[in-house]
Amino acid sequence: MSELERSLDYARDHQQQHLNELIEFLRIPSVSTLPEHRADVQRAAEWLAENMRRAGLSAVEVFPTAGHPVVYGEWMGAGPDAPTVLVYGHYDVQPVDPIDLWDSPPFEPEIRDGELYARGASDDKGQLFVHVKAAEAMLNATGGLPVNVKMLFEGEEEIGSPHLEPFVLEHKDLLAADSALVSDSRILDSDTPCILYGLRGLTYMEVIARGPARDLHSGTYGGSVHNPAQVIGEIIAALHDENGRVAIPGFYDDVRPLTDEEREQLARVPYSLEQWQEETGLDKPWGEPEYTLLERVSARPTCDVNGIYGGFQGQGGKTIIPAMAGAKISMRLVPDQDPNRIAELFEDYVRSVAGDHVELEVINHNNGWWAITDLDSAEIQAAAAAYEATWGKRPVFTREGGSIPIVATFQRELGTPVVLMGFGLDDNIHSPNEHFRIKHFYRGIETVIHYYHRLAARS
Amino acid sequence: MSELERSLDYARDHQQQHLNELIEFLRIPSVSTLPEHRADVQRAAEWLAENMRRAGLSAVEVFPTAGHPVVYGEWMGAGPDAPTVLVYGHYDVQPVDPIDLWDSPPFEPEIRDGELYARGASDDKGQLFVHVKAAEAMLNATGGLPVNVKMLFEGEEEIGSPHLEPFVLEHKDLLAADSALVSDSRILDSDTPCILYGLRGLTYMEVIARGPARDLHSGTYGGSVHNPAQVIGEIIAALHDENGRVAIPGFYDDVRPLTDEEREQLARVPYSLEQWQEETGLDKPWGEPEYTLLERVSARPTCDVNGIYGGFQGQGGKTIIPAMAGAKISMRLVPDQDPNRIAELFEDYVRSVAGDHVELEVINHNNGWWAITDLDSAEIQAAAAAYEATWGKRPVFTREGGSIPIVATFQRELGTPVVLMGFGLDDNIHSPNEHFRIKHFYRGIETVIHYYHRLAARS
Repeated sequence: MSELERSLDYARDHQQQHLNELIEFLRIPSVSTLPEHRADVQRAAEWLAENMRRAGLSAVEVFPTAGHPVVYGEWMGAGPDAPTVLVYGHYDVQPVDPIDLWDSPPFEPEIRDGELYARGASDDKGQLFVHVKAAEAMLNATGGLPVNVKMLFEGEEEIGSPHLEPFVLEHKDLLAADSALVSDSRILDSDTPCILYGLRGLTYMEVIARGPARDLHSGTYGGSVHNPAQVIGEIIAALHDENGRVAIPGFYDDVRPLTDEEREQLARVPYSLEQWQEETGLDKPWGEPEYTLLERVSARPTCDVNGIYGGFQGQGGKTIIPAMAGAKISMRLVPDQDPNRIAELFEDYVRSVAGDHVELEVINHNNGWWAITDLDSAEIQAAAAAYEATWGKRPVFTREGGSIPIVATFQRELGTPVVLMGFGLDDNIHSPNEHFRIKHFYRGIETVIHYYHRLAARS
Repeated sequence: MSELERSLDYARDHQQQHLNELIEFLRIPSVSTLPEHRADVQRAAEWLAENMRRAGLSAVEVFPTAGHPVVYGEWMGAGPDAPTVLVYGHYDVQPVDPIDLWDSPPFEPEIRDGELYARGASDDKGQLFVHVKAAEAMLNATGGLPVNVKMLFEGEEEIGSPHLEPFVLEHKDLLAADSALVSDSRILDSDTPCILYGLRGLTYMEVIARGPARDLHSGTYGGSVHNPAQVIGEIIAALHDENGRVAIPGFYDDVRPLTDEEREQLARVPYSLEQWQEETGLDKPWGEPEYTLLERVSARPTCDVNGIYGGFQGQGGKTIIPAMAGAKISMRLVPDQDPNRIAELFEDYVRSVAGDHVELEVINHNNGWWAITDLDSAEIQAAAAAYEATWGKRPVFTREGGSIPIVATFQRELGTPVVLMGFGLDDNIHSPNEHFRIKHFYRGIETVIHYYHRLAARS
C-alpha cells in the first residue's frame, strides 16, 4: 500500500477521534473581540499548540503578540529539496450575539443532520483543524510528509489581524516557504469544489468638503455658496460614466486584461442571476455591460460609495447650508493596479471636480494589494487534482471580489503563491447557528493529504 | 399742536415709564420650547393683555390654543372708512442656553451702554411692545388713532407657530384688515432704516434611495449594484448646471423678473462682499453670475442640499454598499413660483435622474409661499415716510432670502399686504446677551405713530 493510501486509511480510521478533538477545541470560547474572553483565546492557543505537538509537529510555540498569540508549528523532515508549504488559519471566533437565535449553545457543539453546530465550526477552527489532522495522519501512518510544512495560526482574524503582518515581517526566515495554503473560505456546493485564485485589492478614501465657517441659514445665504454637500454629490456623480465605468483618469491603465482562458473558467462557475437576486434583494444588475455578472464582482476593478454624511440628518427639515460634508469611497483593485497610485489618481481627480469654492480634505485610510495565483502553477494544478481525487469532480476556478489581507502579505512579503483551499459552505458564519458539514471536515483532511502528495510529485 | 405732535410728545414724556414696563415684561421667562416654562408663557400672555387694556385697547382677550395662547386686542374707533391695520408680534422667547455665556442673567434685564440686555429684548418682546406703547400714546394724548388697529400676539413663534395659522383661519372676520404690520426684523444699521418688501418661499423635499435589501459587502457585490449613495450623489449633481442655475426643468418658468426699479433699490442696499465674507468665512461667492450677490441671496430662487446621509459614517472605513441613502433638499422660491408645482417638478426630475435600479421615495416635507408687497403701495410709501420722519433718512428697500410663514398666511388668507417694520439690529437674538438698543425702542414708537398718520392721510 502506498504512503498516500496508508495516510488516507489512517484518516478514515480516526474520523471519530478527530471529530471528538474538534468538538473539544470548539468548546473554548475564543472570541477575540471581547476583552472578557481574553483568557479563553489564550487557552485556545495553548490547547491548539498541545494538539499540534501530539500530532507530531515540532518547534511548536505560542508566540505572544501585543494582542492575542500566534501559534506556530512545523515538520521539516522532507528535506531541502522538497517544497515547503506555509499553512494559515485562525483559532479565534466571532461573538455569538444574538444568542437567543441559537438552537443549541454556541460553545456546546451539537451534531444535527450531519452538521456540527458551534461558533467557529466552519470559521475557522474546523477548517484549521483539517490541516493539523492531515499532518497527524501522514506522520502516524508513514512517519513523514511528502513536503515540509509550516503552520501559522492567528487569534486576531476576526478583529482585522492587527498584529499578524508585523509578526510575518519579523519572522520572514521562520516563515519562508515555497507556497502558502489557506483554508478559510467556501466551496460552491457540496458537489462542486472550487479554487479561489484571485482576490481584489482595495484603496479606501474619504473626502471631506469644508465650506462656510459654520452651518449657514439657507434662506439668508442660499444662492451664494457652493454648498459642501452639493460638492460631495458632484464628486460622487463624477466617479462613473454613464456605462458604469470608473471615470477617474488613468484608473484602468494598469489593469491586466482577463485572458480568454480565465473568462472560460469563470463562465463555468455556477453563479446565477437568480442567486445574485436572492442575495441582494435586487431585480437587475448594474455595471459594465461588456462583462458578465461574476466578472464584474470578482475580476473587474470597481468604485463604491460606502457612506455619505453632512448637514441635517434628523426628522423633518432644517434649512441649513452645511459647513461640511463628506463621503467614504473605496475602490476594489485588480492586477496590476497599484493601490498607492490609485489613491493619487483619485485625489487629483476629486480635487479637479470639487473646484475652488470649498476646502477639500482627501484621506487615504487603507491600501490593500490584490492577489492572484497563476492557474498553470504547480500549486493550483496539484490542488485541482487533490479536490478531484477526493470529491470526484474537478473544481471550478474563481476569483473573489473581496480582500484577504494576509494573502497579499504572503504573496508580497514572503514571495509565495497562495492556494485558497476552502471546505466551508454558506455555514452561517458570523451568524447564529454556525455549522460545518462533518463530511467536509473528513474530506478536507483527505484533500490535504492528496494535495501534499501531488505537490511533491510536481515539484 | 396737531394730534401727531401731541402723540409724539406723550411718547417722549413717557419714555422712562414705557421702558420700565418693558423691563417688567422681560422678567417673565416665557420660553415656549420648554415645558417647565409653560406657566410663565401663560403669565406673559396675561401680563400683556392687562397692559393692552391699560393702554386703552378694547376687546382684549387671551385666546387659548392647543399650545400657548394668542393675545388679541383692538381699537376700532377710526370708523369704517379709515384703514384697519393688523399688527403681529410674539411674546415668547428663545431658551437661554448656554447660560454661562450671559454677562447678566437673561431674565434680570440690565442696561449697559444704552442697550437693554435680556432674553426677548429684541426678539420680539421689545419690538412688540413698541406697538402697544404707540397705541397708548395716541389714545392718551388724543383720545384715538387715525386708523383702526387690531393686535395679534402669539406665544409660539420660536417653536414654528404650530397653532397660529389655524387660529387665523378660524378668526378671519375678527382679523379682517386692509394691511398688516409686523415688527420682528432688523434694520441695516442705526442710521439706515430699511423696509423688507419681499420674502422667499420654500419647498422642502427629502429623497431616499433604497437599493439592496441590506448593506452589502462591497467586495462581494461591488460592480454589480447601482449604489444608493451614488444615486443620491447623481441626483445632487444634476440639480445645478455649471453656471449655478437650478437645472430642474420648468423651475424658472413662473419666476417674475426683477424690475429695473427693484434692481436699482437693491443696489442701494449696503450689502458688501466684505460683510458676506465675514459672515460666511468664505473667500468668494458662488452662484448665478448675472445677478448681484444680494439678488442671489434674496430675490432669486435657489436650491440647496441641507443634509446627506447613508451607509457608514463612523471613524475609518467599512466596506459596504449601503442599502439606502438620502438627502434633504430645499428650494427657496420667489414670485410667482407655486411651491406645490415646484415640488412636482422636483420629484419628476429626480426620478428621471435616479434611473430604475433603486426605489426612490420622494417626500415633500413643507411648502411655504413667498411674500411681496408692492413698492408703490400706500403702506410701503407711508412706512418709508414714517422712517424718514423719525430717523432722518429715507429707508432702503430690500428683500430677504428667508421665509416668515405668517407673512405669507396674512397675504394669502387675509388678503392683506404686509409691511415688515423692523427696529432691531444684530442683537444677539437666539444667543447669549441678547439686547435691544433703547433708542430704537423709543424711535420705534414714534415711527409707528408717524406711520398711522401717513397711512390715514394716503388712504
